[in-house]
Amino acid sequence: MFPMRILAASSLVFCVLMGCGSPNSDLLAEQQKLLQRDSEWANLASEGKDVDRTASYWSDDAIIVAPSQPVIEGKAAIRKFVAESFATPNFHIHWKSEKVAFSPDRKLAYMTSTTQTTVPGPNGVPMTVSGRGITIWRREADGQWRCTVDIWNDPPPASP
Amino acid sequence: MFPMRILAASSLVFCVLMGCGSPNSDLLAEQQKLLQRDSEWANLASEGKDVDRTASYWSDDAIIVAPSQPVIEGKAAIRKFVAESFATPNFHIHWKSEKVAFSPDRKLAYMTSTTQTTVPGPNGVPMTVSGRGITIWRREADGQWRCTVDIWNDPPPASP
Repeated sequence: MFPMRILAASSLVFCVLMGCGSPNSDLLAEQQKLLQRDSEWANLASEGKDVDRTASYWSDDAIIVAPSQPVIEGKAAIRKFVAESFATPNFHIHWKSEKVAFSPDRKLAYMTSTTQTTVPGPNGVPMTVSGRGITIWRREADGQWRCTVDIWNDPPPASP
Repeated sequence: MFPMRILAASSLVFCVLMGCGSPNSDLLAEQQKLLQRDSEWANLASEGKDVDRTASYWSDDAIIVAPSQPVIEGKAAIRKFVAESFATPNFHIHWKSEKVAFSPDRKLAYMTSTTQTTVPGPNGVPMTVSGRGITIWRREADGQWRCTVDIWNDPPPASP
């Protein structure tokens, strides 16, 4: 029994030091996993090619609340929005998210994000605009996280 | 036993018809309760008097992401934001929320809202602007729901 106790005690010390299996390490891992999924999505959108795969990161009932635009609701409308964006000359988008917060059951989450979007400017010259927003994510029945709300607005005029 | 069975069967039929105690009626009640709390908050903000009570509906770590403004983070900054808003001549705000969605554990929720805000216009004449947004709510340790994210943007130019 003694060696087993030493082993158990060593494991305990190791886990206290390294945080293995603790709620915090588990939470950090889950946050990283969701940020990783969001990052894959951002890279996919950045390529501006695959409409269906890009649209697949939103839930079927997702809403996109873009400044000065009607609310885009549901997968069909979202698919159209993505297709039109990708078809826009010189269109480019990329975003980076952070600060993931979960519901205690880890079935709902939200995060902040900062987005750079290149669109045709007033005189046709491409211009890059910044936005900062919130995405809300839901872990669906298949275990996959999908974005269910996507809303952003303009940063202060002075910021880049 | 027979009368008891009839009673039980009648209750079952009644409850199937009326939805009493079903997950749906329970969910609707919870949604209504949270919308009621949001409505009380909107009325309080509309009065434009009680800074502390108005600020108490946000969580201590809440963020407000208002268009073209730096992100307002934490209770002290939020309190200042509310106090400055209430001190603005002719300031008036009111909002109405709907479409509450919960995490399965009912500890995190979000809803959509439409807000009318009266602020001084470019020439000092009060003007009323609309916004539509998302609030995210967290049920905190004391059992109370508080808003933890508050973000909105402008509706399409054509809408009222």
